[in-house]
Amino acid sequence: MGVEGGRDIDDLPKNSANYTALTPLWFLERAAQVHPNRKSVIYGSKQYTWLQTYQRCRRLASALSRRSIGIGKTVAVIAPNIPAIYEAHFGVPMAGAVLNAVNTRLNAATIAFLLDHSSAAMVIVDQELFSLLEEALRLIADQKKSNFKRPLLVVIGDENIDPKSLKIALQKGAIEYEKFLEDGDPEFSWSPPKDEWQSIALGYTSGTTSSPKGVVLSHRGAYLMSLSDALMWGMTEGAIYLWTLPMFHCNGWCFAWTLAALCGTNICLRQVTAKAIYSAIAYQGVTYFSAAPVVLNTLINAPREETILPLPRRVHVNTAGAAPPPSLLAAMQERGFRVTHTYGLSETYGPSTVCTWKEEWDSLPLETQARLNARQGVRFIGLEGLDVVNMKTMEPVPADGKTIGEIVMRGNLVMKGYLKNPKANQEAFANGWYHSGDLGVKHPDGYIEVKDRAKDIIISGGENISSLEVESMLYLHPAVLEASVVAREDEQWGESPCAFITLKSGVDGLDEKRLAEEIIKFCRAKMPAYWVPKSVVFGPLPKTATGKVQKHLLRAKAKEMGPVKRSRM
Amino acid sequence: MGVEGGRDIDDLPKNSANYTALTPLWFLERAAQVHPNRKSVIYGSKQYTWLQTYQRCRRLASALSRRSIGIGKTVAVIAPNIPAIYEAHFGVPMAGAVLNAVNTRLNAATIAFLLDHSSAAMVIVDQELFSLLEEALRLIADQKKSNFKRPLLVVIGDENIDPKSLKIALQKGAIEYEKFLEDGDPEFSWSPPKDEWQSIALGYTSGTTSSPKGVVLSHRGAYLMSLSDALMWGMTEGAIYLWTLPMFHCNGWCFAWTLAALCGTNICLRQVTAKAIYSAIAYQGVTYFSAAPVVLNTLINAPREETILPLPRRVHVNTAGAAPPPSLLAAMQERGFRVTHTYGLSETYGPSTVCTWKEEWDSLPLETQARLNARQGVRFIGLEGLDVVNMKTMEPVPADGKTIGEIVMRGNLVMKGYLKNPKANQEAFANGWYHSGDLGVKHPDGYIEVKDRAKDIIISGGENISSLEVESMLYLHPAVLEASVVAREDEQWGESPCAFITLKSGVDGLDEKRLAEEIIKFCRAKMPAYWVPKSVVFGPLPKTATGKVQKHLLRAKAKEMGPVKRSRM
Repeated sequence: MGVEGGRDIDDLPKNSANYTALTPLWFLERAAQVHPNRKSVIYGSKQYTWLQTYQRCRRLASALSRRSIGIGKTVAVIAPNIPAIYEAHFGVPMAGAVLNAVNTRLNAATIAFLLDHSSAAMVIVDQELFSLLEEALRLIADQKKSNFKRPLLVVIGDENIDPKSLKIALQKGAIEYEKFLEDGDPEFSWSPPKDEWQSIALGYTSGTTSSPKGVVLSHRGAYLMSLSDALMWGMTEGAIYLWTLPMFHCNGWCFAWTLAALCGTNICLRQVTAKAIYSAIAYQGVTYFSAAPVVLNTLINAPREETILPLPRRVHVNTAGAAPPPSLLAAMQERGFRVTHTYGLSETYGPSTVCTWKEEWDSLPLETQARLNARQGVRFIGLEGLDVVNMKTMEPVPADGKTIGEIVMRGNLVMKGYLKNPKANQEAFANGWYHSGDLGVKHPDGYIEVKDRAKDIIISGGENISSLEVESMLYLHPAVLEASVVAREDEQWGESPCAFITLKSGVDGLDEKRLAEEIIKFCRAKMPAYWVPKSVVFGPLPKTATGKVQKHLLRAKAKEMGPVKRSRM
Repeated sequence: MGVEGGRDIDDLPKNSANYTALTPLWFLERAAQVHPNRKSVIYGSKQYTWLQTYQRCRRLASALSRRSIGIGKTVAVIAPNIPAIYEAHFGVPMAGAVLNAVNTRLNAATIAFLLDHSSAAMVIVDQELFSLLEEALRLIADQKKSNFKRPLLVVIGDENIDPKSLKIALQKGAIEYEKFLEDGDPEFSWSPPKDEWQSIALGYTSGTTSSPKGVVLSHRGAYLMSLSDALMWGMTEGAIYLWTLPMFHCNGWCFAWTLAALCGTNICLRQVTAKAIYSAIAYQGVTYFSAAPVVLNTLINAPREETILPLPRRVHVNTAGAAPPPSLLAAMQERGFRVTHTYGLSETYGPSTVCTWKEEWDSLPLETQARLNARQGVRFIGLEGLDVVNMKTMEPVPADGKTIGEIVMRGNLVMKGYLKNPKANQEAFANGWYHSGDLGVKHPDGYIEVKDRAKDIIISGGENISSLEVESMLYLHPAVLEASVVAREDEQWGESPCAFITLKSGVDGLDEKRLAEEIIKFCRAKMPAYWVPKSVVFGPLPKTATGKVQKHLLRAKAKEMGPVKRSRM
């Protein structure tokens, strides 16, 4: 790279003074320099400062390097939201390696698939999850995969937990995490990536329908998403963030890195409960947290004595996942939470659209506000393209709020691709767009709204029914805690909606048959006749680790029920 | 670009779905989509919405393209902070061309140099400045530069101004700006840059000592600086920003683009006065503005009837340029302004360090706070490297707050380089760092502090004296409005400090000799003896357009005065 140039306006080459690969790793170095004594990570009585976190991450990177775990290698972490997984977000890529934060609620078979697929060189595991990991490793060994090398095991001990599982892990040859760090140099001179396109993280999709796909993210994308996160949510320097969202879920939507950029404070939680959230708000100054709608539901329905209402200050909640029903958004707002509704996928570094609030909504009725705010909105500043297109022609649908098409994205917040899956990459990136697989509409104000996953749409008598819209209506019923609607075979109409409902506590005792009838009647008053569920089933909903309802299981249940019989008019 | 790949963790190529060149131009497209009806630019009774601004910028880009002004071409704009110069920040690069916003206070000879040096293909000029431009063009013609092609001229009319100058411009063949826009297509399909390293803007250094150097900025850098600006200042969505800082000055420190990213509102001002600033705060909801210390001075010393104190809300002020004296910062703070002190150069996209406030300062005396806050601080999030180094060895100086070295920067907020100036580039980028030419120290808390421009340091009896530090002390004297200190030849000590002082109004009448003696006495009580100015001169200070004192003129004056005579002890 020369430094002469300048013969004309574009003849000025990059050099080491004016070009640096984008990476969120510099955020940590900066936080340690600017706010060395500010709390970085708090987990119960364990508290670290930014200087300490930086040193611990350098130790981690150094210890990895000493074991030749660097560029091209993957390090898996299986842990709840505790300091070690936060540190892995920096320490692992500082060694040049790729972080794979594994969903802790997966079964051993799936974890075995992941570790094998990603050729994990090392696994950092919480002591409570060690037996699960051991089982996964046994499964791989049983399959006699000759090319799979048993990874190095590092176990994270936790004083608050029965030491038995830690002892077992150590007996089985795992190194204790703190011991592993002691091996490393706190002044380790880590190398930023040479190329910002280098991979920083790998995360597996929840795989509700197919085998999990490994989403690969770049340093560049992680950098841009971290800053977008802050800007799209109005998060400023020193934010105090509660880790309700699992860090294994798209790297906590990249907030792991955002918090370092903001020199903020991470409040860690091993277990997410309404009581723990309200208590962190009351006693730790929390002003921001992200959560799937199911967590918001828990907050709304928590017993009075677990809440701390009214809130001592405005608390910002970032929600994504399934579209939150308007009734839920309204209830949160009434309690003083400021809910920002975002939407995205693992493939887009987490949420990459946001339902930006407009000042003209302020004077609307609360329910209208909630309905507008339940839409998926507009693109993040870091995402350059977002549209809803006809699935055959790829033409944008009209902005009429009605015509359904596929939601597609383009830009720097789209993944590098799926690991070892050329076919999936070809499908995902067809025609120069990333295909979300979600169906939606574009409203006249340009905001998009998800109507359904492509596979969740119900086709009744040739008409499309959005299962999400039926669910939204069901949530308005006072007895409904959660609702999920899928297609059930129907002799007359091909398919018809079948509602699976969890009731609020206290309602459980009622006669289910009468309640089902009442709910159907309630629906008739609120929606077109063909949308009204013909079948209502009560019980808990099966969910993925991140709170997504596993509709494929409900569809299987609906299939078992057989077709809805032709009714006489 | 393929989409298959994925054989291993780094084998996933870029494609058009997952990689887009970074450019601030997308911010405008997004603002127009998200907030089409929100006010984008307000200038007196002229008000535009984001949709209108986007359409006007597309018209501008379209009209430029029709005249083949695109990639590799430069468009100069000579105008105060009015809507047209804001629009040029988007319209010109949307056509692929490079924007050169010209300092309006330059003389015709310098403007002639700039237009010739940058081979301006077109000049957009405010009607009031047309005659200045004409003179510059005449100078170029007189020099019979055969390779200089007379640029296309577009004149911006303003109803608030005597139409005479507009008439003359039109007679001389200039096209009226609104007419020029009418030529363009409001739906013009502009092309984002293919390569984010492409040049977006060119700005000439004020050239206090040498002939102006053309600083070239990239789309990538402008994007990253725009977001850094917002994050480093805690500016959030919808900010209302007053244009006190000239947009020709490093593109208004890139805030021209930041405001689009935030979908905020730009309040334009033809003339910056204390009254206009206070009035914009009172009546237009302004919450942010940037200003050189000289503007802050004006605000502090404004007659009571022009102020609106106490402020109706917290107003954030971003200041850079010469280091503001602590006394000034303290006075601003007392009035309710929240002053963020930043530092940088044209070569670093404007300020790229910030004196980040620390919570532990809150409880310190106001004067200590001001002293801490007057330092240049820490690097912007978008700048990856900042240090103070020994000028010979390039080794970092110790963080002792005493050892002086050169301030150097490295990263994405460093310019591409100087246009057609390989020698300057080689010097500026020596040893992999950008050399600021500013001398400073590093404090134990890692914050840097500028002590002086390399050439402004005074060497008296072999000891370095920071002219800035002497100035800071002078500002504490109640009669001093502005102070600038330079070296004057000294028979005994080689050099000694010579102070040029502007007095506050009301003080002017006093006996200057007695006042000078009093000021020297005041200094003796506050600083080491060898720092005390031996000479004091009263009068207005010569300044560049951006409010920087032109010390080379003061040095010339000091030279005329001859050496300080050897004094008997």
